[in-house]
Amino acid sequence: MNHPNPFLAELRRPLPAELGEALKARFGDRFSVAQAVRDHHGRDESPFPMTAPEAVVFAQSTAEVADTVRLCRAHRYPLIAYGAGSSLEGHLLAVQGGVTIDLSQMNAVLAVDAADLTVTVQTGVLRKQLNEHLKTTGLFFPIDPGADASIGGMCATRASGTNAVRYGTMRENVLSLTVVTADGKVIRTAGRAKKSSAGYDLTRLFIGSEGTLGIITEVTLKLYPVPEAMSAAVVSFASMADAVNTVIQTIQLGVPIARSEFLCERTIRAINAHSHTTLREAPTLFFEFHGTDASAREQAELVQSIASDLGGQDFEWASRPEDRTRLWNARHNAYFACLQVRPGCRAISTDTCVPISRLAESIAGARRILDSGDFPTMILGHVGDGNFHAVLLVDPEDAHEMQEAERLNDEIVRLALSMDGTCTGEHGIGLHKMDFLVEEVGEDAIDLMRRIKLAFDPDNIFNPGKIFRM
Amino acid sequence: MNHPNPFLAELRRPLPAELGEALKARFGDRFSVAQAVRDHHGRDESPFPMTAPEAVVFAQSTAEVADTVRLCRAHRYPLIAYGAGSSLEGHLLAVQGGVTIDLSQMNAVLAVDAADLTVTVQTGVLRKQLNEHLKTTGLFFPIDPGADASIGGMCATRASGTNAVRYGTMRENVLSLTVVTADGKVIRTAGRAKKSSAGYDLTRLFIGSEGTLGIITEVTLKLYPVPEAMSAAVVSFASMADAVNTVIQTIQLGVPIARSEFLCERTIRAINAHSHTTLREAPTLFFEFHGTDASAREQAELVQSIASDLGGQDFEWASRPEDRTRLWNARHNAYFACLQVRPGCRAISTDTCVPISRLAESIAGARRILDSGDFPTMILGHVGDGNFHAVLLVDPEDAHEMQEAERLNDEIVRLALSMDGTCTGEHGIGLHKMDFLVEEVGEDAIDLMRRIKLAFDPDNIFNPGKIFRM
Repeated sequence: MNHPNPFLAELRRPLPAELGEALKARFGDRFSVAQAVRDHHGRDESPFPMTAPEAVVFAQSTAEVADTVRLCRAHRYPLIAYGAGSSLEGHLLAVQGGVTIDLSQMNAVLAVDAADLTVTVQTGVLRKQLNEHLKTTGLFFPIDPGADASIGGMCATRASGTNAVRYGTMRENVLSLTVVTADGKVIRTAGRAKKSSAGYDLTRLFIGSEGTLGIITEVTLKLYPVPEAMSAAVVSFASMADAVNTVIQTIQLGVPIARSEFLCERTIRAINAHSHTTLREAPTLFFEFHGTDASAREQAELVQSIASDLGGQDFEWASRPEDRTRLWNARHNAYFACLQVRPGCRAISTDTCVPISRLAESIAGARRILDSGDFPTMILGHVGDGNFHAVLLVDPEDAHEMQEAERLNDEIVRLALSMDGTCTGEHGIGLHKMDFLVEEVGEDAIDLMRRIKLAFDPDNIFNPGKIFRM
Repeated sequence: MNHPNPFLAELRRPLPAELGEALKARFGDRFSVAQAVRDHHGRDESPFPMTAPEAVVFAQSTAEVADTVRLCRAHRYPLIAYGAGSSLEGHLLAVQGGVTIDLSQMNAVLAVDAADLTVTVQTGVLRKQLNEHLKTTGLFFPIDPGADASIGGMCATRASGTNAVRYGTMRENVLSLTVVTADGKVIRTAGRAKKSSAGYDLTRLFIGSEGTLGIITEVTLKLYPVPEAMSAAVVSFASMADAVNTVIQTIQLGVPIARSEFLCERTIRAINAHSHTTLREAPTLFFEFHGTDASAREQAELVQSIASDLGGQDFEWASRPEDRTRLWNARHNAYFACLQVRPGCRAISTDTCVPISRLAESIAGARRILDSGDFPTMILGHVGDGNFHAVLLVDPEDAHEMQEAERLNDEIVRLALSMDGTCTGEHGIGLHKMDFLVEEVGEDAIDLMRRIKLAFDPDNIFNPGKIFRM
């Protein structure tokens, strides 16, 4: 890491005894200082070492969240919101100690307003649970970051994933949030109208704030009618450049594809081994098309023609739901498939996103950079948005490898920034990208973020030590 | 109005002599205290009386904006950004005196990145100018609020308009902003990547901030390929309910229509008189369909079948560009057509937006409320988003009528809020809707907005007296 160690012991504060007693009195068995419970809440999917909070509260309502905030605030003690634990940049790690508030029991779907294409959920509802719940309504929620993340967590990191090319990210798909502020007040940021010009966009301010400005307890989301037709396709290419250029041309033509995922030949090899598939081990694109029968077919034909011009081979169709599911399961399991290439390793994932015309250059550059390392690496991602992930399989016990991985990550980020891109398309800043954020937006923009933080949370109790230094 | 008069003379401060001299020295002829110039900058399209600034600066660059900010800040003197003067809620009115900074000379298109589907413009570029500039690229910028507004102004009010149902609003279509802060610093909120999870969403915070947090000087926008096919249709109905229900069902089915505009029979009558058209004087929908030839046709057929089921008559097609242009010109001139119904009147426009299932009820309620007044009224709007406008033609010299118009507006807004809607879908809060904003989001949310304002602009120099009271 190119920033001061955020795990400095001197920043950790033990749980004030009085706060512990008050939380115990308020939450009974749903307050815990057991080491196993603390440890469970001290890690996410990042390569950072476990960094446990001093205590954990399991909240069941907005009122309970507000009570917890008021108690922690009274002691100026850190409070970290925890959803499903699937963050990738150390967002949940209790680097200054603190109480973690586990929101997974706030998992009720509160209202499906099918006629309005909206749903209101508690923050801990999981993405897959939500779509399961919606199954009989003819509607679905498209944002799909791969992991079965909580909706509140997806808001907090401004998540997106495979469907964003057509449906947008959490930024575009949240209508309203219920949030507990540092004063323990409960606000609702907006109504359920599809658009509004009513005052500052508090909804968008909390989306991507990584738990540092308030705790999201309820979320109203946009829903979409399940398309009449969905079909998927797989096509492989002689080179990464041909694959990526197929996507670039598709986007430039405005074809409204639902998903387009790139997987390098190494990723495909890992998937074949893990998922027992027999995909050709070459740079590959997965596509999904949503629409009426005719429009989905039309999109697919257009993409097939672009791919053919660029030497795409083995075009394979998957129109039956079970075939599509098998394909996307293979994609979603790519992360775990990659992990198995090197038993015992941890995966470090880059997350750059660049303007679409620079994507081929950006991915080729990433491959060159990665090949200067001496551990296995793969490239995959949501290329329709200009976003991709390099996966670096490192031995977490090997300090040299960890350092080398950071160096490669740094170079890949700098390449993206030189192309007017971003250090993070969808994972967030967390502990890991604070210096990149400064490079990306500059100290003066960080200063505005810092002012917002101080205005909302003057005692810095909400998830301290993340996004930027105070 | 249901709030204290914002034009209280006691809030006005004259131009500090020293500030005037410094601005004169810096800007020469582009600094003016001429009454005609001040008056020109003291009104917008709202029914508020002219409220002129004390001086006007014509800026030509971001550096000049920064110099103006630093000078005004040094004197804690108000500074109001002015684009095209087309705002509808008194956003530009110098209620506390101040310097207006006219940005209309900052009208350069800086970079068309066609391969990335982005364009970067100076803040004063006008919407029509931009699309004219893009004509040979095969790309267009879809956001269309009717008025030929400036891009910076459209950001400041979070504008949208007729195309939002398919393409979204300014919220969804701005990638990055260059902004001058109250410290006279210049920040850029983001790069040009299509998505990003890098820190707080400063871009979205400035969008809709109505000039109160900083001055936007450059904007990077998303562009879209001009669709292969565009066709428009007009259909009239026996009742408002049938027309609105046609739109509701279209949205609920997920048909990706580009535009759907409702015009009541009185609006059509005004248009026929103004634009010499012969549209049937009945509740009417205008539609536009974008896509490939096949998909645009398919959308149109689907909508025609829904409309027919609800008694839609006289379905008329306009596939030729000149026919579409005539149709949309008639729609865009509806505001002026309405004004001519009562010579010498001013139009007050409501701007509520509700969840789509409540739209028919909301419009029927608005008509009932309007019919309790005794001046001409019309209803029209972007119904695909749940947004519509009641136009009230009042005599601005008649205090009773003005008061009565406010009462009707109040009732229409309260009805929308009772349906979990918003007091403003696209016009903004300005001077006019500060109390409604409190009702809509509550004092605790306003308190957060106020904290942001104080954190960004502690001396309250940027467009004071708008959105909320300090």
